[in-house]
Amino acid sequence: MMKLHWSPRSPYVRKVMIAAHEMGLQDRLDCVRTVVGGTTPHLDLMKLNPLGKIPTLELDDGTVIYDSFVVIAYLDTLHAGAKLIPPAGPAWLTALRRHALGNGMLDVALAALGERFRPAERQSAPHLTLWHLKLRSCVAALEQEAAALSHDPFDIGHLAIGVALAYLDFRFDSEKWRDGHPKLATWHATFNARASVVANPPLDDR
Amino acid sequence: MMKLHWSPRSPYVRKVMIAAHEMGLQDRLDCVRTVVGGTTPHLDLMKLNPLGKIPTLELDDGTVIYDSFVVIAYLDTLHAGAKLIPPAGPAWLTALRRHALGNGMLDVALAALGERFRPAERQSAPHLTLWHLKLRSCVAALEQEAAALSHDPFDIGHLAIGVALAYLDFRFDSEKWRDGHPKLATWHATFNARASVVANPPLDDR
Repeated sequence: MMKLHWSPRSPYVRKVMIAAHEMGLQDRLDCVRTVVGGTTPHLDLMKLNPLGKIPTLELDDGTVIYDSFVVIAYLDTLHAGAKLIPPAGPAWLTALRRHALGNGMLDVALAALGERFRPAERQSAPHLTLWHLKLRSCVAALEQEAAALSHDPFDIGHLAIGVALAYLDFRFDSEKWRDGHPKLATWHATFNARASVVANPPLDDR
Repeated sequence: MMKLHWSPRSPYVRKVMIAAHEMGLQDRLDCVRTVVGGTTPHLDLMKLNPLGKIPTLELDDGTVIYDSFVVIAYLDTLHAGAKLIPPAGPAWLTALRRHALGNGMLDVALAALGERFRPAERQSAPHLTLWHLKLRSCVAALEQEAAALSHDPFDIGHLAIGVALAYLDFRFDSEKWRDGHPKLATWHATFNARASVVANPPLDDR
């Protein structure tokens, strides 16, 4: 049994959980609730992953791996079904670029969320303005790509983008990202309907 | 000729430049100085990469890819020499995990640097404390791994870790990361002596 350092709030962990479900591997993960965030270091986790971040996966032989991309890439080697990371070629490059986009949106969103949790007098309005602009820029770019997302077989790119948009719903609903982006909204509804996604909702606590 | 959106200050770009040199591909990159950072959005860059980050690479056919890992993974398909991303197996997993560690160190270091550039009254001491603790934790973990780094063939993991430690020298020299970490310091000296690394120094301006 592999041990996954896990939280129901982390969108990076959610990527791994959805990926494992897509691969039929969810029963091989022993999820251990590991709370990181804010400015309190998690010293036990940092013995395994000195960055102190989740997901962190302990393999059966004691090997420890991170980050979410690496965990998903590893899990993708453990099953014989359709791969979340396509084989070498144009689809592979598109999938990796889309993963970087979705994961980059999460990085920006988490930075903005962390800023909002600071005392008001320590918040930086220019940073928040920049980060929200970046998120809107990503959504606008994805609207242009929505037809291709709908057409292409589901892969790690769809996974990261779907989770990122769901995270906007979870933490930034005032952004109303669907406004003006009907194709992306339609695609995201198909993402949200996947069994793997339904089985792994974002939760504030559990 | 591929067009690389580039800056001499960006450690993520430096990873790509060193990788291209290792692969003998440096002459195929047309480096365009693209300044991002602070809180001013780069609207032209965001038309190519809505995250507004570098490196961003435009391929000959107009395809745009990012982030640094994806650019390096793509370049690694364009040459017949030793691959920076090893083929499937334990070395592959170790390389990806080490890359995530080095790149994660850069993310933490850039967050800390951005914090220092804020007006003093907007800086958060708890965040700076956490980020410096994480950097020290990473260095301590790498000291335990230094013998393996020295033994294993150079790959994308060495690249990311080497660049991350060099970035500490560049921006956080008061951390004196070599103190108490002699094996890592010895390994890093071999990294710094590589022709690809010497040819691509971090520079404040050029």
